[in-house]
Amino acid sequence: MAGSLAVSETLRSNLTPDMDLASRLFDELRANSTDGLGVTRDAYGAGERMAHELARREAEALGLDVQADPVGNLYMTLPGTDRAAKKVLLGSHLDSVKEGGNFDGAAGVLAGLAAVAGLKRAGFRPSRDITVMATRAEEAGAWFPTSYPGSRGALGMLKAAELEVKRQDTGRSLADHMREEGFDPDFAVRGEKVVTPDNTAAFLEVHIEQGPVLDSEEIPVAVVTGIPGSRRLRQGRVLGEYNHSGGTPRRYRRDAAIALAELALGLDEEWALLEAHGHKLVCTFCTMATTEEAGFTKIAGEATFMLDVRSVNPASVDAIFARLAVLVPEIEARRGVKFDLGPETGSTASPMDAGVRAGLARAAEAIGVRHMEMASGGGHDAAAFAAAGIPAGMLFVRNQNGSHNPHEAMRMEDFSAACAVVTRWLADVAG
Amino acid sequence: MAGSLAVSETLRSNLTPDMDLASRLFDELRANSTDGLGVTRDAYGAGERMAHELARREAEALGLDVQADPVGNLYMTLPGTDRAAKKVLLGSHLDSVKEGGNFDGAAGVLAGLAAVAGLKRAGFRPSRDITVMATRAEEAGAWFPTSYPGSRGALGMLKAAELEVKRQDTGRSLADHMREEGFDPDFAVRGEKVVTPDNTAAFLEVHIEQGPVLDSEEIPVAVVTGIPGSRRLRQGRVLGEYNHSGGTPRRYRRDAAIALAELALGLDEEWALLEAHGHKLVCTFCTMATTEEAGFTKIAGEATFMLDVRSVNPASVDAIFARLAVLVPEIEARRGVKFDLGPETGSTASPMDAGVRAGLARAAEAIGVRHMEMASGGGHDAAAFAAAGIPAGMLFVRNQNGSHNPHEAMRMEDFSAACAVVTRWLADVAG
Repeated sequence: MAGSLAVSETLRSNLTPDMDLASRLFDELRANSTDGLGVTRDAYGAGERMAHELARREAEALGLDVQADPVGNLYMTLPGTDRAAKKVLLGSHLDSVKEGGNFDGAAGVLAGLAAVAGLKRAGFRPSRDITVMATRAEEAGAWFPTSYPGSRGALGMLKAAELEVKRQDTGRSLADHMREEGFDPDFAVRGEKVVTPDNTAAFLEVHIEQGPVLDSEEIPVAVVTGIPGSRRLRQGRVLGEYNHSGGTPRRYRRDAAIALAELALGLDEEWALLEAHGHKLVCTFCTMATTEEAGFTKIAGEATFMLDVRSVNPASVDAIFARLAVLVPEIEARRGVKFDLGPETGSTASPMDAGVRAGLARAAEAIGVRHMEMASGGGHDAAAFAAAGIPAGMLFVRNQNGSHNPHEAMRMEDFSAACAVVTRWLADVAG
Repeated sequence: MAGSLAVSETLRSNLTPDMDLASRLFDELRANSTDGLGVTRDAYGAGERMAHELARREAEALGLDVQADPVGNLYMTLPGTDRAAKKVLLGSHLDSVKEGGNFDGAAGVLAGLAAVAGLKRAGFRPSRDITVMATRAEEAGAWFPTSYPGSRGALGMLKAAELEVKRQDTGRSLADHMREEGFDPDFAVRGEKVVTPDNTAAFLEVHIEQGPVLDSEEIPVAVVTGIPGSRRLRQGRVLGEYNHSGGTPRRYRRDAAIALAELALGLDEEWALLEAHGHKLVCTFCTMATTEEAGFTKIAGEATFMLDVRSVNPASVDAIFARLAVLVPEIEARRGVKFDLGPETGSTASPMDAGVRAGLARAAEAIGVRHMEMASGGGHDAAAFAAAGIPAGMLFVRNQNGSHNPHEAMRMEDFSAACAVVTRWLADVAG
């Protein structure tokens, strides 16, 4: 996958994405999915269907080869000279959360179409197929409580039991929704695959950052190092003893609130220390709360918390939990409380492919787009491709106001920079 | 008030409280105020009336001089040889919280009656009047939201506006309730006084500890050093910014939860340091909580807290608030949050009289009752007497399971030790 010498540097330098196409499609997507407040494109429902039909119509107008797979993902292919060579896949999802923004997901599909349209306009004929993929149902938190059913369906990783999860608003199963949209969930049950390491050289997902880093650093794009794995405590409790705040001296207390504060601050200090030693991770007490029985003139007898620790590097997450394992008995002994950590949940990290990362960085440098490296905050379809053994990469675009809300924003000049990097990368890997 | 030599040491040593009387009265009080779960004796209502009638009946049977004042406090006097001399007053309240215990308050009145009955039985004739006082409506949190209206009424300290506070269950005013019970709230409006430094040499209140210290230390009684003053923040807030816990690196966070944890632990460390330097105080974050908007995968944008700092020594409380004033801007700068401390409330400390404290310690030593010193946790009628310039003291009795709950417990052997100390003290100060 090194840059081919078959494409002249002159041609390569003149390749530009079709940003008019991208702007037009963003506007059309927004107009067709506005909910008054933001946009809503429901997974395996009318909103996502509208977006997929729009992409299909545009791809057909561009003369691309358009196909859907049995679980509803859409493939829009600019054929290569060697149709048997492993294809380059790029895309993202077209569903959104309820009252979400217009860019989360859609930016990845439209970046692919803009880049491919630019290549086609310049008369660029790739050495291998370049396929823009619009996946399905990525927004697990909003619709189906399971991870990446669309991309994992294509990759043969979707389990039969997952087809029975219910869409949160309709109460009907994923399988039912797939059938209603004209697809074949039994394909997933049979474990069949459309996308494999044997037919796919790489997967690239362009996505808005969803965080404040690029905006703060004033850098338009980032090459993603990986999608973090996590270890999570969602039902943590500290059990102490309710006592009178006036009548109970320090050494007789079993104060759940201060014990929790000590744990939280202890892990926060460990995080700072790990960062100072080069680790990259996040460690968040998403909630910390005394319970309803607490109140004025009482010492808190109970407190609850949610802890979320993430890193692309499992060792960094484990270091926090190792510190937790030391601190908990220390605090228990010192403060006369008991911690009940509850069940631990988590996910495996998905490091992005070193070759794809290096290729994206080279492409950005070749066309003078400032870039940095960063880990992803949330999960993305790219994680599924990485898990299936396909070299995967992500390019983040600077955005404002976070994501999953109506105020989500992205400047077209930044998106244009991202599309230019993608175009250059495609010319390199399929040149 | 030094021990008089008019009473022989032999007589003094043979004086014992009438514990049968005390046991019988505790049983009768409990039987007449049980609510199924604990006991309820409503202030200026049927429960408190029953208890006052019971005390009056017993005092009359003992041949004491019995009177009520215009706000309903009851005075049961063993006359002294010099009726013009300043009297010795001892007692406590007879109301209880809802579903409370039998000993909080009542122990102080019954200790007085048991001691006086013992003195009378032994033929002891005091040099000055000894008056057992049953106050009214001490449980401000349960009935009338104002401090010590009964004792402050007797002391000429009850303000006209306070007479209009409403009983929390009936919604009717303190003045209305006083009138219904046959008393004269206008007495308080006129600022008239029954108990003054000119007619009262000392006030002693026996009370259950309400905390775990005596039980843990295995000591039956404590001489109280004072009733703490307080500085309180009941509506503290920390304002940060909600962000994605996965996508927001450490340096971009404004995490209200971890900022609050840092403040809480900082003040807890200051408390430990002050204690190591001999300060006696308590410092409690009664509540600490992220708000409803918080949840998994979010960084907390807001947190609330209640802080309660108390000490007999105002300098100790001020030291905590001085540390708070240093920590808040430090944490704000470090964590990008803003603290809104809200209104501060508080109360003035009431140190107990040095002479009374020394007298109680001498009395305990004379009869071999183990004792210690400690500050009170909560507020008590004794604070009102101290505020009026009357030398006031308190004697705590070991108890179990705290107070203000149905499981409140006190062993009769400990109460007996307390009554013996009181009897000896009375013989000393009115011998």
